[in-house]
Amino acid sequence: MKVVIAPDSFKESLSADQVARAVERGWRKVFPDADYVRVPMADGGEGTVESLCDALGGRLETVEVTSPTGGRHRAQFAVSGDGETAVLEMAAASGLHLVPPSERNPLTASSYGTGELIRAALDLGVKRIILGIGGSATNDAGAGMLCALGARLTDEAGRPLAAGGAALARLARLDLSGLDRRLHDVDIQTACDVDNPLCGENGASAVFGPQKGADAAMVAQLDAALRRFADVARRDCATDMADAAGAGAAGGMGGGLLLLPQVHLRPGVEIVAEAVGLAEKVADADWVITGEGRMDGQSIRGKTPVGVAKTAKRFGKPVIALVGGVGRDYAAVYGHGIDAVVPVLQRIDSRENILAAAAQNIEAAAENTARLLKTAMAAGKAV
Amino acid sequence: MKVVIAPDSFKESLSADQVARAVERGWRKVFPDADYVRVPMADGGEGTVESLCDALGGRLETVEVTSPTGGRHRAQFAVSGDGETAVLEMAAASGLHLVPPSERNPLTASSYGTGELIRAALDLGVKRIILGIGGSATNDAGAGMLCALGARLTDEAGRPLAAGGAALARLARLDLSGLDRRLHDVDIQTACDVDNPLCGENGASAVFGPQKGADAAMVAQLDAALRRFADVARRDCATDMADAAGAGAAGGMGGGLLLLPQVHLRPGVEIVAEAVGLAEKVADADWVITGEGRMDGQSIRGKTPVGVAKTAKRFGKPVIALVGGVGRDYAAVYGHGIDAVVPVLQRIDSRENILAAAAQNIEAAAENTARLLKTAMAAGKAV
Repeated sequence: MKVVIAPDSFKESLSADQVARAVERGWRKVFPDADYVRVPMADGGEGTVESLCDALGGRLETVEVTSPTGGRHRAQFAVSGDGETAVLEMAAASGLHLVPPSERNPLTASSYGTGELIRAALDLGVKRIILGIGGSATNDAGAGMLCALGARLTDEAGRPLAAGGAALARLARLDLSGLDRRLHDVDIQTACDVDNPLCGENGASAVFGPQKGADAAMVAQLDAALRRFADVARRDCATDMADAAGAGAAGGMGGGLLLLPQVHLRPGVEIVAEAVGLAEKVADADWVITGEGRMDGQSIRGKTPVGVAKTAKRFGKPVIALVGGVGRDYAAVYGHGIDAVVPVLQRIDSRENILAAAAQNIEAAAENTARLLKTAMAAGKAV
Repeated sequence: MKVVIAPDSFKESLSADQVARAVERGWRKVFPDADYVRVPMADGGEGTVESLCDALGGRLETVEVTSPTGGRHRAQFAVSGDGETAVLEMAAASGLHLVPPSERNPLTASSYGTGELIRAALDLGVKRIILGIGGSATNDAGAGMLCALGARLTDEAGRPLAAGGAALARLARLDLSGLDRRLHDVDIQTACDVDNPLCGENGASAVFGPQKGADAAMVAQLDAALRRFADVARRDCATDMADAAGAGAAGGMGGGLLLLPQVHLRPGVEIVAEAVGLAEKVADADWVITGEGRMDGQSIRGKTPVGVAKTAKRFGKPVIALVGGVGRDYAAVYGHGIDAVVPVLQRIDSRENILAAAAQNIEAAAENTARLLKTAMAAGKAV
């Protein structure tokens, strides 16, 4: 029997690798002789660097980058064991969590640090970059990122624009001639699970601006600025990003990235699955175990378990999800390749104690899941 | 497919019947065409009257009885649909919960009300009484119960003894000639899961007295009084109960009951299983589902799930326990016929909310259990 264990992390408690190890411990009590293949997974969101670092036998690199407000801080990214792939999270360089609430300003916050992060990966000679873009503090259409990589954004007087999305209202010229040449040889797989356009009522500013601190007036101001950015890009770079699906992701970072030569916006879990070779691993598996901290109606929208199930179902494999808990409408996952959902909670307790006992709970739930399956198989029932 | 659903109640939230119905709802979502047989179970403890009333299509009767402190209150018991079986709980007549903590006194608390409860059942013409004896306030060796049924306990001067265990120190004569004659024709199956003797360091007073309010001096006083009771019973009734296993149960009620003509002390879950015809029901079942509110290391000592499993394993049937939560050492149940344990918790929440959501949680856990089994059966795996 071959068991592939491909969970996401359980946020607030365990990394994906830790979850996978706990699942294996539990199953081993019931099926000690099975072959276990642990595949720490992620969906491009928080935890992607850690999961892929574990899955690809990689190492963590640290680089100093510019924060959204212009300060400097240290950011981590992962490089695979073979040195060919770097895994970056925009949040590590330009994340909302890096800015104290009182200092958050989507008008001026810049994605410059994410460009530095990409440059650091280029410096290491990787052939592929996996970039997660969730959780950013910025609404600058990736303008800061482009500048860090050599682009020049100037006003009517030919002066460089100030940092942030609001300044894009004065954008007169967008010059990509100075872009880092190495970008032509590196594939940038960008995890993007939304299809929002850059501007308008479903655009970056209207949909994601408020959670970064934008009020109604700021949203209107930023939306107009990003529209200016799109107009100039169409004229100067022959790239029409305004209506591209996903251009509105991460404060318009999706749009800015489209100006780079080798960028692909794809669902994060597909990128991760490809990077870890999930399909080859599940092709001859008997059971596929996945999981996440919380499963709810949103889990069918690009989250790891449903992504893992999609791959597993290409090969007709049964998929079981172990989860920290379920929320409203989680049953939707049953229509998306998940055969059964097992919450791992073992007893009524405080949130603090439950998070502290996560590994033991997962192990116990995995053991009992394996026991149920063994019982059913031993009984040799016909459905 | 035939599924027998035989859980105990989940204390603080659902009756056994409610648990069984929730399990069936969950399973039906996965196996809509299976045959479901719900068997509300109990182990002779709290909830036995309700479970058996449901399982036997019975009705509840109410009778006024004497409380442990001499007041009067109304107590319920169940009569089976065929009128042949009465189900009584000693706690309903003589329970510790009936006495406010400040009024608890194991020296004087009397089991008289339990005798009245038995008499009420006799008045209905039943052929069999099932009697649960847990949770009593008394330490009187069932002396009060015996008096209510016609026995005479007198002192050297021939005067009736006062109520309670302490008065037994002055017992000079135990006269059973006035016992209700109907007791000869009624089988009294008494649920007794302990094997404590009447007296000594493992006796009723030493082991159970403290939880009823006895301090060290009271324990010694009561132990001597119960020894006197045993001595007189041996002499006057030719019954040597002092070392009988279970005589120490329920403040010595186990011993007092042994003076009645047709009493059998047996594990409660065995009595209940027999009353509901559990063996016949599981004999041709494909799956047996049981459960209880909390499973721990004590669950192997006469609790419902392990009792159900014992019956199921006579026929080689797989047994799954759905539980409100697990405690220390619950894994011991795996050695006692339980194939898998499934905690029903679905999310981190307050104790209050979790108890309120018990039925939904059980239904969800049952559905997922059935999904796991169906997945395993469909996969047609070999172990």
